Order: sequence, then C-alpha cells, then structure tokens
Amino acid sequence: MTRLSIEETVQFLNNNDGYLILTHTRPDGDTIGCAAALCVALRQIGKTAFLFPNPEITPQYEVYTAGLTADGNFIADTIVAVDTASEGMLAKGAEKYAKDIALCIDHHPSNTEYADRLLLDASCGACGEIIYEILLQLSGALTGDLAERVYVAVSTDTGCFSYTNTTANSLRVASECAKEGFDLAAVNKKLFRTKTRARVAVETKLYSSMKFLAGGKAAVCVLTLADIDNAGATEDDLENITALPAAISGVTAAVTLREMSDGQGVKGSVRSYGDFDSNVFAQKFGGGGHKGAAGFTIKSDISALRSEIEDALETEFRQ
Amino acid sequence: MTRLSIEETVQFLNNNDGYLILTHTRPDGDTIGCAAALCVALRQIGKTAFLFPNPEITPQYEVYTAGLTADGNFIADTIVAVDTASEGMLAKGAEKYAKDIALCIDHHPSNTEYADRLLLDASCGACGEIIYEILLQLSGALTGDLAERVYVAVSTDTGCFSYTNTTANSLRVASECAKEGFDLAAVNKKLFRTKTRARVAVETKLYSSMKFLAGGKAAVCVLTLADIDNAGATEDDLENITALPAAISGVTAAVTLREMSDGQGVKGSVRSYGDFDSNVFAQKFGGGGHKGAAGFTIKSDISALRSEIEDALETEFRQ
Repeated sequence: MTRLSIEETVQFLNNNDGYLILTHTRPDGDTIGCAAALCVALRQIGKTAFLFPNPEITPQYEVYTAGLTADGNFIADTIVAVDTASEGMLAKGAEKYAKDIALCIDHHPSNTEYADRLLLDASCGACGEIIYEILLQLSGALTGDLAERVYVAVSTDTGCFSYTNTTANSLRVASECAKEGFDLAAVNKKLFRTKTRARVAVETKLYSSMKFLAGGKAAVCVLTLADIDNAGATEDDLENITALPAAISGVTAAVTLREMSDGQGVKGSVRSYGDFDSNVFAQKFGGGGHKGAAGFTIKSDISALRSEIEDALETEFRQ
Repeated sequence: MTRLSIEETVQFLNNNDGYLILTHTRPDGDTIGCAAALCVALRQIGKTAFLFPNPEITPQYEVYTAGLTADGNFIADTIVAVDTASEGMLAKGAEKYAKDIALCIDHHPSNTEYADRLLLDASCGACGEIIYEILLQLSGALTGDLAERVYVAVSTDTGCFSYTNTTANSLRVASECAKEGFDLAAVNKKLFRTKTRARVAVETKLYSSMKFLAGGKAAVCVLTLADIDNAGATEDDLENITALPAAISGVTAAVTLREMSDGQGVKGSVRSYGDFDSNVFAQKFGGGGHKGAAGFTIKSDISALRSEIEDALETEFRQ
C-alpha cells in the first residue's frame, strides 16, 4: 500500500484509464456525490469511466448517477473506491473487486489500507472536500454539474453544516461549489427541508412514546414493529432517528428501544452528553460503544425492557 | 437620507463615538449577532458602545449581549440600527429613537430609508454578511468573539445554510468566521440540533392532527389553545411551525389552523409550492399574502373551519 498526495493522485488519474468507481454499502450523499463527480470529471478529460451500480442507492441521489453507471459488459482497467473505509464496507456486489482496488480516496481515520494506493485526509469532514481538491487540479475549474455533486457530498455528510465534523474547510468548499451556478435552493430543499410522510409518522410515534426521567435529564422512547409497519417506514426513514430524544433541551442521556423483525429482539440506542457514559450504561445490557453513543440488542419484551431501562436511568442519575 | 458604501460606513464609525445600537422587535440571531459584534468591535477600537436592551431577547442569544447592554443612564451620541427594515420594526421601547437614527445597516430590500444614513445590501442572505465586511475594515481582522457573533447572525438567518436566501457568500463568510477558533460544534448544537420539550410537544400535536387530502398533495393541521397550553409552548416554541406540513414529500399546499387566545379567533397559515396560489386561497377566507405563503384570521369554531378548509382544498385540487 502506497500513500499518495493530492498531486500524486491527480497524476495517477491522468496516467490511467478504464475507470470503475466503487461506493460504499448503504450509500450516502458523500460516497455517491464523490463517485459521480469523479466519474464526470474523468469523462471530461477524455477517460472512460463508470460507476459501479450500487443496488442500495436511494431515490434522492439517483439523479446524480444517471448515465454514469456501468452495465454488466464493462471491463475495468482501473478500480477506484471512494469514501469507503474497509473492504467490508464495499457496496453489495462489489466485494469481488476487493483485492483489485488500485486507488482509494477516503477521509475515515479507520481506513484499513486495503487498496494498492491510498489518499487519506482524516481532517476533512466529508470525503467531498478531498474530491474537490482533486477535481480542481484534474479539470482546472469546476463546472456546475461537478460543483453540484461535490456540494451534495459535503453538505450531506456534515448534516447541512451542523454536525460536529463541520469545519471552516467544509464551508469553504461548499461556498466555492455554490458559485458555480447550480440551483442551491432546490438542492437544499430536497436534501434538508423535506421529510417523507413515513418519517413524520415514525417521529410522531417516537415522540408520543417519550417519557422524561430524572427531572428531564433523561428520556426513553420506544418504536414497536407495529409503529414502523403502520408508518410504512423503510430503513432510510429511520436513519438517525435515535438522535432525536437526545436533542431535546435539558436531556443529557436518552435511550431509544426499537423492536426488530423476525424475532431479533429489541435494539437499544443510547446517546448522551457530559458525564453520562453511554458505553458503561450499554454494557449493563450486554452492549457497548462510545461514551457519547452506544447500543445493545436483547431478546426481551419491549415493555418489560422499557421499565428496566427507566429504572436503570433513574438509578444512574440518583448517584 | 444618504446611502453609504462599506468604506463610508467604516469612516463614519471611526469618526463618531457614544454608540447605542438598536435591534428589531422579536429579535433573531441576525439582529442580535450583528449588533453585538458591532458593539464589541467598536469597543475594541476604543469607542464607547452599548446595545439597546431588547426586552424580547430569547435565552439562547443572551450570552452574546452579556456586558454590552446599556442601562437607563447611558446617553447616546450616535444611534445605529441593524437588520431593521422600518421604524415600526424597532425593538419595543426603542420607538423613541426612531427620528434620531444616524445610521442603519440592513439587508432587507423593503427598508423604508428611515435613518439619516443607510448601508443596504439586499444581495446578502443575512445582515451578518455586511457586518463581516465592516468589521474586517474596522478591526483589521476578526477575533474569536467577533467571529462567533457574526457566525450566529449568518447561520441563523439562513437556517443553517438551508433556506433559499443562502448564497456562496453566506457560506464564505461562515467559513472565514469558523477559522477564528470559537467552538463551532457547540454553537451548531445549541442553535440547530436542540429542540425544547415544548417545541417537541407542539410538533407532535401538529403532526398527530394532520390529514392528507387530494392524494397527498395537500395537508391540513390544527393547533388548539389546549395543545399549546398543555405543551407550555411560547411564541418562540411556535416559530415557523406552520412550515412543517408543507415540508413533507409530495405536499404542495398545506394549511395550519391555530386557535388564538382571548377570543381572537383562528389564524390560518397557507404554504404552497408550484401552481397552487396561497394568496388566492387565503383571500377566500378574508386574508392574503404571497403566492407561496399567505394567511387569514377568522372568528370561527376551529373544527367547523377545518372541514371548510378541507373541502376548499379538495375542490382546488380537483380543478
């Protein structure tokens, strides 16, 4: 494995051809935006380039890959992975390329160095910030269609510039992209100011089930299988929903219990701020994680488990 | 009334002293952030400067005005208003200064030119973008406490860079501010990733009351006085809540009915996209507004009015 600089990456991209670009499983705006922008830029300089057809791509990102995905007949000379930390994270169906990846461009500090060459900048909030620098050198300047894809990458991975990974550089790259004349307002409305009916329905169920404990410092929510089914919610609709109770003023520890299908039991997500250690709390229920976010899975009745969790939280805050 | 450039404004600020800075009624992050940043910057260059004590300031912004507000004894030589479009928009209690405002710095195209001097740039998404340019020239560079206040101004007025008024310049100014070493993650969490319990309670009530019509193209919600009282919601908690039903996928027209206190009847808010004309719809109920957002107030029973509104929406979409 060889580490590359931006300049060496650009040189590599200029010197090769026949690109197949891989994205990660459960693809987000960062991996899709990066891959699609790189693919368009490579075509602009005369290369043959295609995206691996990620079967899990969600509707709001399909517009960015239209006309770019490879069919079964394309034989790649050079395989590039973007925003993908490990072989295990490759898109479904792309595992077969795991040993042949010539270049990986990534921002995850946990990157397992699985590719022959690696451009890694863990200081970037989004992989799109790295792709931006590459495209500037590869193409000289960003056209509107490149800028929109890079903007999608950076804005989605930083939660529209509100997550803790947002930096001055994330905002700078977004600003440079926004100058290039795509419809910024339309992109923002689509990505950040629209919720599906199913999302609204599960959020309403989640909040309706919420109980505050320890004088409002803790909160417990549940989502039953019936709640999820009645809402018609997909995994996409449930994304990051466990962050909601912890985002309420005064709450420093929140647990969301979600009933899983097929007898997989109940999944608990713990989120906390300050002194409360989510990892220690989750360990009491056979799980673990980090201080600020942890989880566990238990085969238990959700109502009984809820009482147990509530007692454990009250005890924790009495100490 | 004389129009000033940025340079002329900086010259004016350098040549005068004894500043009282006025904000607008129902103050938001833009007016408070701008006024507080300007006040700190003027003090940094040796001027006497105070903020008018806006009685409606909300808790999350109080940290930015601490130590800056004038008491009753301060006699101002130079009165400046920021982000305030008209005399009628001045903070409660500041009306008495209306005829003595030496300088107004604003970004509202509707500014009524009430001040002796006006620096107006309607191309800016936030007034904070104008203040940023002034401070750069006034102070040479932004310190962290100036940068944080300007960031608060720009980020809140653009809905964390997601509203339609966001431009490449909004993002650029935010990026320059974020370089100056305040706790960006903490500010974003406080302003954009936290909801009060009362807000969550009224949102849940609003969504629970929601009915979809015309195959999901329209939605109607109600908030009764009991909903608002039970939630313990203030006007702050209700801010922009009428935008929520219109932000659901597929919905192109939404009406929110809110029961007002003291027999003031029911307030209807209409929001729409595309062909649906909110103004025309609101006129049917004695109100009006713009194509995308309009309103009306009716002395009527909220349940009866709801049925009437639902029928009117169904009729509208059948045409």
